[in-house]
Amino acid sequence: MKVSELGEFGLIELLSQTTQRHQHAASPAWKNLVVGIGDDAAAWQTDAPLELVTVDSFIEDIHFTRELTPWHELGWKALTVNLSDIAAMGGVARYAVVSLAVPPETEVSDLTTLYEGMAELADETGVAIIGGDMSRSPQVAINITVIGNGGHGREVMTRSGARIGDRIAVSGRVGGAGAGWEILRNHQHHDEAAATRLVELFQRPQPRLAAGQQLLRDGIHCAIDISDGMVNDLGHICDASGLSARLEIDRLPLYEEAKQIFGERARDLALSAGEDYELLFTGPEATIHQAAARTDCEITIIGEMIPAASDRVSLVNHQGRPYRIACGGWEHFSGQ
Amino acid sequence: MKVSELGEFGLIELLSQTTQRHQHAASPAWKNLVVGIGDDAAAWQTDAPLELVTVDSFIEDIHFTRELTPWHELGWKALTVNLSDIAAMGGVARYAVVSLAVPPETEVSDLTTLYEGMAELADETGVAIIGGDMSRSPQVAINITVIGNGGHGREVMTRSGARIGDRIAVSGRVGGAGAGWEILRNHQHHDEAAATRLVELFQRPQPRLAAGQQLLRDGIHCAIDISDGMVNDLGHICDASGLSARLEIDRLPLYEEAKQIFGERARDLALSAGEDYELLFTGPEATIHQAAARTDCEITIIGEMIPAASDRVSLVNHQGRPYRIACGGWEHFSGQ
Repeated sequence: MKVSELGEFGLIELLSQTTQRHQHAASPAWKNLVVGIGDDAAAWQTDAPLELVTVDSFIEDIHFTRELTPWHELGWKALTVNLSDIAAMGGVARYAVVSLAVPPETEVSDLTTLYEGMAELADETGVAIIGGDMSRSPQVAINITVIGNGGHGREVMTRSGARIGDRIAVSGRVGGAGAGWEILRNHQHHDEAAATRLVELFQRPQPRLAAGQQLLRDGIHCAIDISDGMVNDLGHICDASGLSARLEIDRLPLYEEAKQIFGERARDLALSAGEDYELLFTGPEATIHQAAARTDCEITIIGEMIPAASDRVSLVNHQGRPYRIACGGWEHFSGQ
Repeated sequence: MKVSELGEFGLIELLSQTTQRHQHAASPAWKNLVVGIGDDAAAWQTDAPLELVTVDSFIEDIHFTRELTPWHELGWKALTVNLSDIAAMGGVARYAVVSLAVPPETEVSDLTTLYEGMAELADETGVAIIGGDMSRSPQVAINITVIGNGGHGREVMTRSGARIGDRIAVSGRVGGAGAGWEILRNHQHHDEAAATRLVELFQRPQPRLAAGQQLLRDGIHCAIDISDGMVNDLGHICDASGLSARLEIDRLPLYEEAKQIFGERARDLALSAGEDYELLFTGPEATIHQAAARTDCEITIIGEMIPAASDRVSLVNHQGRPYRIACGGWEHFSGQ
């Protein structure tokens, strides 16, 4: 059945049922909910001293193509993008509202699959999807707002919290999503298991919520998530903190699968492709080591914050020689 | 200058300056802000026991046309739509995040005008615009999320709060926006002052925040805002409350200007055109009278909630005879 046959209110009803069927009401978010889907606004009780909000849009042929990202993964990923922003603040994600715009000829079953993907991740992360908006549009556009609380009282991690001499560290491994995207785009045949793993990293990225909360608790005050490309995102930290950064490219924690398939290019993908949704953060070396010991993901030191220089981010190899990458990160309107 | 020439980050910087220049930092929302535009998420301190969230999208050629709504009014109205949802809950609007998608060939000056319109209304209503998202898209799409607090402790007005015998009342006057839209669409020449007034009602609707808060304080528990058309919106109250409604069409508070230009059709516009963003609410007659005395806008009783019947909403004239309108309210995907 097409969306045009079911109609707006039928679709809202169906998708709200889909969302609720795939979410368990055990999380604090659900317990505190006073008014959910179906009223003018959603409402919940809270006693948290700090509230967080973030919004991201996911637009067809701009942020994703239906060819490379199936509907279930699209729902998962559209929510990850937002949860990752809350993770980068060290926050706890609580509620999501979803504004969906679709062409009338969209299959209803594709949209229920989309919402299943979204609800699956919401359920895993204790987030309640409590409302939204539905409209017609020439292309699919998913706009998600996530609301959270401070994960550690009134504190947050910001982009502006870096200090000279801070080490730069990253959670997990990087370049996997970029490698997965390349594999999907080029329809290349590779080692099947390696390719599958990398494609999964592109299609189902994990938001680092628990790691973000732990970093904040352990005294990290500066973080960003890797969405636009590591060099670009580190540039945002530099701008906000009024500093520059030196990145040691031989220290990057790359995926074995990416090295296996892409060789030397795996490093450039890690530096510029983005969409890894790992946390990039800075702090004193001892603080990072302490946080790393208590975090359930790999933490790797990859560079250092330095006084503001002509290059915002300079890349050096293990001999201290400058390194140049082939292409930059993502920017809208730039014709990329 | 086109958006494509300025680039994403330049545009974000410019629009964030525009927003901040037109908002005064005196409201509690600004005072409690910890992290504003430019980080992964915005953050603020709060001690409110109840939080509210609502989201609405405003998409070109679906919800608006650039021909009928100039950029400044577009910004104003896109925010009104959301503030009106908070008003319908009896809440206090605090923060807004704006997700904007535009074609690369859009003029930057049009977007600053859009944000000025948005910031003007935000400033008037004590709302702080604290973040957002920017992307490329084939058509203009404005997606706003507004976060608020309960206006009266832990209580809210909902669509499901109607009881049998409740009177149905409406704030202000109705049908003005629909009349203004008709005037714009048909390029008709009318009495200039009347036409100007009606067009203003369509382009710059006022969210009824203060009235909503007062209604809740005075014991009203059921409300909705008129966006899709009065009959449609009353139908939502009926569905949520498991009741039907009888509307006395001769009691509708119409605009003199609309009657002057549209005669008898002014009533149909009030019943079905929507976009008035007045509050439609129900309660015991004495409660409504008491609330009306303390509210700074007109309140008119226009009907009664009755046990569920085959017609969700029945329209009767002053002689009790059934009345039929020419066209229904707004629904997406229905080919309207």
